[in-house]
Amino acid sequence: MTSDQRLTPDQRLSLDEQHLARAALTYLAEPGDPALGALLEICEPAEVLAAIKANMLPGIGPGCGDSLASRRALVRALACWRIRLPELPSDEDIMAACRDSIRLIGPGDPEWPAGLDELGPARPYALWLRGQADLGLACLRSVSMVGSRAATGYGTHVTREIAADLGERGWAIVSGGAYGIDAAAHRGALVTGAITIAVLACGVDYPYPAGHAGLFAEIAGQGLVMSEWPPDRHPARLRFLTRNRTIAALTGGTVVVEAGERSGALNTARHAAQLGRPLMAVPGPVTSSQSAGCHRIIREWGATCVTRADDIIEMLSPLGLTDASDAAGAPPSCGPGGGAPSRDELDHDSARVLDALPARGAAGTSTIAAEAGVDLDTVLRCLGLLAGSGFIERCDRGWRLRKP
Amino acid sequence: MTSDQRLTPDQRLSLDEQHLARAALTYLAEPGDPALGALLEICEPAEVLAAIKANMLPGIGPGCGDSLASRRALVRALACWRIRLPELPSDEDIMAACRDSIRLIGPGDPEWPAGLDELGPARPYALWLRGQADLGLACLRSVSMVGSRAATGYGTHVTREIAADLGERGWAIVSGGAYGIDAAAHRGALVTGAITIAVLACGVDYPYPAGHAGLFAEIAGQGLVMSEWPPDRHPARLRFLTRNRTIAALTGGTVVVEAGERSGALNTARHAAQLGRPLMAVPGPVTSSQSAGCHRIIREWGATCVTRADDIIEMLSPLGLTDASDAAGAPPSCGPGGGAPSRDELDHDSARVLDALPARGAAGTSTIAAEAGVDLDTVLRCLGLLAGSGFIERCDRGWRLRKP
Repeated sequence: MTSDQRLTPDQRLSLDEQHLARAALTYLAEPGDPALGALLEICEPAEVLAAIKANMLPGIGPGCGDSLASRRALVRALACWRIRLPELPSDEDIMAACRDSIRLIGPGDPEWPAGLDELGPARPYALWLRGQADLGLACLRSVSMVGSRAATGYGTHVTREIAADLGERGWAIVSGGAYGIDAAAHRGALVTGAITIAVLACGVDYPYPAGHAGLFAEIAGQGLVMSEWPPDRHPARLRFLTRNRTIAALTGGTVVVEAGERSGALNTARHAAQLGRPLMAVPGPVTSSQSAGCHRIIREWGATCVTRADDIIEMLSPLGLTDASDAAGAPPSCGPGGGAPSRDELDHDSARVLDALPARGAAGTSTIAAEAGVDLDTVLRCLGLLAGSGFIERCDRGWRLRKP
Repeated sequence: MTSDQRLTPDQRLSLDEQHLARAALTYLAEPGDPALGALLEICEPAEVLAAIKANMLPGIGPGCGDSLASRRALVRALACWRIRLPELPSDEDIMAACRDSIRLIGPGDPEWPAGLDELGPARPYALWLRGQADLGLACLRSVSMVGSRAATGYGTHVTREIAADLGERGWAIVSGGAYGIDAAAHRGALVTGAITIAVLACGVDYPYPAGHAGLFAEIAGQGLVMSEWPPDRHPARLRFLTRNRTIAALTGGTVVVEAGERSGALNTARHAAQLGRPLMAVPGPVTSSQSAGCHRIIREWGATCVTRADDIIEMLSPLGLTDASDAAGAPPSCGPGGGAPSRDELDHDSARVLDALPARGAAGTSTIAAEAGVDLDTVLRCLGLLAGSGFIERCDRGWRLRKP
């Protein structure tokens, strides 16, 4: 791909058709369906949708079927997806659902978070977004904070403090929009003007929990309310579990703040660990059952014991650098990334992209790519890493160097 | 050694001479002096004492000098040890110091805890004990609980609870006799009738801290007050640091409950880690500076996060068996040792010793050794392991099988 991202009318049409098909699939199939995920790895969404409507297995090229469940299982799955066909909105109605700042993105879109692709066939078919923030950019420097709905005063206090500190340092806070720890995490980010993302197990406009309608409006105004389910879809117990993998996959790491022994937050934590993302937990009084899950994952799953934003940032340095703090527990000495690298430590492409930024003022992505002599994919990756490491920041006119 | 431990009059005299010399050395040299420790690895204590009195280096055989500091350093050390010679009590006065249940043991004595030998040349020259408990046996199933003097209500509460639970399960609690966490650990053990050992940085009869004179009397009545310093010796800052290695070396593992960032308990923790003993810490609210040290050693030193006696016992199973509890955090299912082995899992010697115990009633150590056909060292080791694993227990008449 070159630095020119403008699409021809034909490409635009094709894109829309595939997005409409992805949107339709979110109405027909439950997210995380491995059969649909496997199909989408080898077929275009529109082809899959047409096959469902025609009650025929999509044409699968030779050698492509190896990653699929058996053909027999696929026939059964097809029957399931067809159950909701009568309720499938028309293309016009799906377009109409994209109202009030609701939009839809799919894999391959510039805003699609790369972390989701590590879910493999369990990757979301599409994401419904409510809000204006750029999901992909926000996720480059993001952390999930999850925990018990039945949080204590201690838990909500600590969550808000840490989320606010992370927000002030430019980290996006991802959580599940529930009462308790989730709400405290969102609110901590909101007060500092940081981006926060509520990943729901229902439609982005579905008022669940009802008491959070106002909170979700605030989150959508400053960050994003996001779902794999289409608008108006109600939540269900299994949907929360399905949703949890997305929370874990979106971000650089997951922090559990208060979780009872059977808290759903431990399910999110397990997904983070399975994805190889840093898993962290905030300890609490051993006399509190709400901290028992945190202590257990520290002891048994190897979750890192974190007590403040600095500890978390140290674990999440986007360039993957190791602990730069000394044994006395002093906070990392440089930059907002915590343990941020010097220019000398940047990889070759990132160093070229950093050099391509103007000394004063800002430059657009295409200009920087041309100046650095790298393609657009590379420049986007490098800009994300450089932003995550505190070298540069976004502004209205593109990207600019951060003042030391 | 055979099962007959009675000594001939000559042996008894020789033993006493060496013990008197060790006692004298505790008056002359500070514990942990590497030069004296190295000397005692190759010379008899009486020989070393005579050399100090004569202001001559002790006769060292060929090839033995390699482990010593250079001869020059030894000459300097000799001069230091001679400084206190004028104040050295006579043998009669040293004997008189062994009053009011105060006694002295040295390396090689049956009661000497094997764990101390892992300190190498830093091993204590001798231990002054106040109390009737058997130090060696107590240490076979023991844990150090240390922490801040400026403990919070949370810290003292949790410490007492855990110490009492451990005490009820037959574990001896070792600590430093200080205010705060140390005192709570001792008291938790005392209330359950368990053995507790206060390891002081002053004489076993020196009232420091003054407010603990009564506590020390209680500890001596039920367990042991212990010191490497002779009676009446006052405490000093460096002595606490020297003392800490002994607390760590005595026990199967060390638990830190509340420690500020600069707490001396972290010094004890470091000794435990250096000795390869399980290091554990109890978490607390991240808003409390008194838990900051605990969280740091969990995060940075790999200390295990423990919240209750079961967690600690699981780490300390004397036979070194791994976690028998399931992932849901259920307590170990069998026996007081936590994760205790079945008879099938015992090593050959332990299995023989266990078989040698009478089905009803009790037997003495020598009888068991003869019945099992193993030497006294082996039987003592095996009895300790079997007791630690909950198979057997001590009673007035020796050892007996525990009821399942």
